[in-house]
Amino acid sequence: MTARFPHAELADLPQDILATILEIQEKSGFVPNVFLTFARRPAEFRAFFAYHDAIMTKEDSALTKGDREMIVTTISAANNCTYCVVAHGAILRIYEKNPLVADQVAVNHRTADISARQRAMLDFAVKVNSASHEIGDADFDALREHGFGDEDAWDIAAITAFFGLSNRMASFSGMMPNPEFYLMGRVPRS
Amino acid sequence: MTARFPHAELADLPQDILATILEIQEKSGFVPNVFLTFARRPAEFRAFFAYHDAIMTKEDSALTKGDREMIVTTISAANNCTYCVVAHGAILRIYEKNPLVADQVAVNHRTADISARQRAMLDFAVKVNSASHEIGDADFDALREHGFGDEDAWDIAAITAFFGLSNRMASFSGMMPNPEFYLMGRVPRS
Amino acid sequence: MTARFPHAELADLPQDILATILEIQEKSGFVPNVFLTFARRPAEFRAFFAYHDAIMTKEDSALTKGDREMIVTTISAANNCTYCVVAHGAILRIYEKNPLVADQVAVNHRTADISARQRAMLDFAVKVNSASHEIGDADFDALREHGFGDEDAWDIAAITAFFGLSNRMASFSGMMPNPEFYLMGRVPRS
Amino acid sequence: MTARFPHAELADLPQDILATILEIQEKSGFVPNVFLTFARRPAEFRAFFAYHDAIMTKEDSALTKGDREMIVTTISAANNCTYCVVAHGAILRIYEKNPLVADQVAVNHRTADISARQRAMLDFAVKVNSASHEIGDADFDALREHGFGDEDAWDIAAITAFFGLSNRMASFSGMMPNPEFYLMGRVPRS
Amino acid sequence: MTARFPHAELADLPQDILATILEIQEKSGFVPNVFLTFARRPAEFRAFFAYHDAIMTKEDSALTKGDREMIVTTISAANNCTYCVVAHGAILRIYEKNPLVADQVAVNHRTADISARQRAMLDFAVKVNSASHEIGDADFDALREHGFGDEDAWDIAAITAFFGLSNRMASFSGMMPNPEFYLMGRVPRS
Amino acid sequence: MTARFPHAELADLPQDILATILEIQEKSGFVPNVFLTFARRPAEFRAFFAYHDAIMTKEDSALTKGDREMIVTTISAANNCTYCVVAHGAILRIYEKNPLVADQVAVNHRTADISARQRAMLDFAVKVNSASHEIGDADFDALREHGFGDEDAWDIAAITAFFGLSNRMASFSGMMPNPEFYLMGRVPRS
Repeated sequence: MTARFPHAELADLPQDILATILEIQEKSGFVPNVFLTFARRPAEFRAFFAYHDAIMTKEDSALTKGDREMIVTTISAANNCTYCVVAHGAILRIYEKNPLVADQVAVNHRTADISARQRAMLDFAVKVNSASHEIGDADFDALREHGFGDEDAWDIAAITAFFGLSNRMASFSGMMPNPEFYLMGRVPRS
Repeated sequence: MTARFPHAELADLPQDILATILEIQEKSGFVPNVFLTFARRPAEFRAFFAYHDAIMTKEDSALTKGDREMIVTTISAANNCTYCVVAHGAILRIYEKNPLVADQVAVNHRTADISARQRAMLDFAVKVNSASHEIGDADFDALREHGFGDEDAWDIAAITAFFGLSNRMASFSGMMPNPEFYLMGRVPRS
Repeated sequence: MTARFPHAELADLPQDILATILEIQEKSGFVPNVFLTFARRPAEFRAFFAYHDAIMTKEDSALTKGDREMIVTTISAANNCTYCVVAHGAILRIYEKNPLVADQVAVNHRTADISARQRAMLDFAVKVNSASHEIGDADFDALREHGFGDEDAWDIAAITAFFGLSNRMASFSGMMPNPEFYLMGRVPRS
Repeated sequence: MTARFPHAELADLPQDILATILEIQEKSGFVPNVFLTFARRPAEFRAFFAYHDAIMTKEDSALTKGDREMIVTTISAANNCTYCVVAHGAILRIYEKNPLVADQVAVNHRTADISARQRAMLDFAVKVNSASHEIGDADFDALREHGFGDEDAWDIAAITAFFGLSNRMASFSGMMPNPEFYLMGRVPRS
Repeated sequence: MTARFPHAELADLPQDILATILEIQEKSGFVPNVFLTFARRPAEFRAFFAYHDAIMTKEDSALTKGDREMIVTTISAANNCTYCVVAHGAILRIYEKNPLVADQVAVNHRTADISARQRAMLDFAVKVNSASHEIGDADFDALREHGFGDEDAWDIAAITAFFGLSNRMASFSGMMPNPEFYLMGRVPRS
Repeated sequence: MTARFPHAELADLPQDILATILEIQEKSGFVPNVFLTFARRPAEFRAFFAYHDAIMTKEDSALTKGDREMIVTTISAANNCTYCVVAHGAILRIYEKNPLVADQVAVNHRTADISARQRAMLDFAVKVNSASHEIGDADFDALREHGFGDEDAWDIAAITAFFGLSNRMASFSGMMPNPEFYLMGRVPRS
């Protein structure tokens, strides 16, 4: 699919946004399309990545980086977002050092080879995604059985909610994953 | 319902967040609960309201402020979010100077007393909310019949996506509307 | 929206129906549109209001008048019926002497500020509305924990079923609420 | 299944209800369970059958008696109501003089051996049943192509809405069809 | 409905398929349409009926022949397949020697006059049909309470899965039941 | 996840089944779990693979082998079957010589980089999978616009229906993909 919205021209970008983009290019070797699509709108770009960083790089959390990307991959598949499943599936494989896990949670997290704690985390995320108005005490209790407190529940919910936003923006705008993502984390380093 | 997460203590807040909260109090006469709930997490507070402002106060848009709040009210009702329906329904009544419109779009935007252009805008928003992966050319064409271009479609989608995030955070956390919102914009000024 | 079916002409009405309509006008100060729409069909008018009265004014019931209107408002919102949510939300506010409750149950009865007994009542009503074929012993047991016996269950089911009929007739025919309903019960009497 | 609510005792019934029941017994050779269940509540009995008669025996209608029972059978199957599918399927077979039609519309009216006009009638009924809030001009236009005017649309909607009520009452209360209904209209008279 | 795909011509059929068809005609007095439709494609015909026989005539199973046809009828109704509901409903009535059971399970197996063991069997089948990815330990445990082991669960799942295939082929191709099926097993032999 | 049903012991297998398994091992270098799971039941094994071969290796078809695996991958994702998405996604990548296509159609075939003809083919398959009872002339016409005749429609429907069976058997039984599948077709040969 051709993206409906053209990428921002680097020459037109405000300094801070350009700097962010050059940094990610340096670090990853390519610029994920989400950066070049959101850069068309600087104020939204800044808010989007500030939100992303606030929840995905937050330090005092019971959720590992792998846990967080597992939530993102699961929710993005539930929302049928190709960009986010492929891009965050890649990051999930790397963080979990597991080349199989992303494909598993994307299709059915209930049978994936993950821990019972992760399954409970994903059950909560899936319910926040599809029926947040039905979340109640029993859902928090189920988390608590696996050591997740209320602040951890907030972390799970916030990641779910933020990527629900991201999924809708990517799908509506026809954003497709960079080819680099598909193979990342699949081939063992030798 | 009692909110599951206690409000932030004003005394503990960073300066910028405290300033934002005092300003809204000054302007509105009360502090909407969404501010005091998100203030528990300063980084998320800043990103949330930066995103909100980027899309809700953006100047070069075909969407009026009333249009935007109409999207918010409609989507929040589809997502069963009490806080957002009541709070944004209030703002919608004020911007549209119409005491009836919020209750109408919250139940069924298809029969509300709004313009055909607004109905098309809400149809697009509702589809982004419930099935963004099925958005296609026909949906953009339907907008175009009412003068909405691709950038306007982005505005509609961004508001829809952001309040999908907001709805999930409010519902999951048991956030309830301040009592002040319920009556706002209902009684004609004399 | 313009109602698809014109109101009955008072001059054409049978005596008993005219009398009913004049009485409600006297009592309420206006004639709710449901009367003038159904009056187009006298036999249906008589049966509709006989049914309504049989279940809504029934005396030997564990359900208060406020309970009954709370069921109506909740179910009508689930069925996206603007007329019934607005009109019966008004009556609910008056009976419960609570200006906030109608907007709360219309969006999400699970988090509304109502009693646990009322929540159980609405849970039962919502299931009769959406999946009556799955109602079983467990549902009656859940009612019983709050003191509702089988006859009370019948009352809840009958109100739910009758307003399911009413919702469909109002929505299909484009019936809109009289403007008077929107503000009723919202402003405290001084 | 055993019905949850015991049948009314004939000895306890008001005269008019007893008369109705004796008449149906005389005419049909048995008393359908819906009469004996509703008779427990005389006011509801009277309103229920008055409504039934108002729409099912109405004379000036484009809908034949067979058409009406076809709507009832289709809608009752969509709502998973065993009593109504079996009882009204029987009456449908008799009115249409067609031993196959009831089983066909109960499973999938789209492929049943009925007229295009009847298919359009059932399409409208099915939408009123499942999504009355989405009924719009296009639905009335589709009826009009087959000669159905607005009053006919009302007839279809009223039958759909009334049997939605009936389905919920029968299913919630565990009402089962009398054994007599299952074979009625299936064996050609010789 | 007219079937979209013409029946195979007997003269064109391979020997083995012709033999199968003549045998069923001899035994039943007519050739069910499913034979003549699949015979258009000999390789698929052979595989289809081999699969059918493997699961429906398997000897070492806790499921009686009546149990198996009860699963088929229930699942086929859930999938809105007219051919399979009518044809297998007929066989179910015969095996169970019960003229009422097929119509009951087709509309709502939860309230049908069947054993608690059969209800558990159908609950499992219905979940395999609609949400096989959510099947978990609790579902196998529920079967076990009624004496069904893992191999019985396989039998139930295999029948459900195979008739899911059959339902889609019949519905997509416009296959309708032979008239003979409708009355089979309904009239007591004298 | 641990598969709920143990693999068949090779030593116990009938000759023909053992031969099939050794052949696939020879050809692929490993034995896909579906063979070892179904081998527990020889009659079902034979029928399953006979059906598979009848539709997947059929020669006179407008569908290429890549087209067929694309249907399988898309439908298996819609049915949340991890085994089939991973195993057939691998084969799809190989047949299409496209390392990206499987991940794309698994998440959202509407935006995948495939031909308009393939998108129409998948639209038809998705509808047969989720609502075969609503398939009608318009669906066949949409296929015809891309050169697919009625026999091609049968091919698409048969593949969809057969893998619906396969998906349910794999998910219900806890079958997981062999690790070999995940990387197949992803790394360009050098």
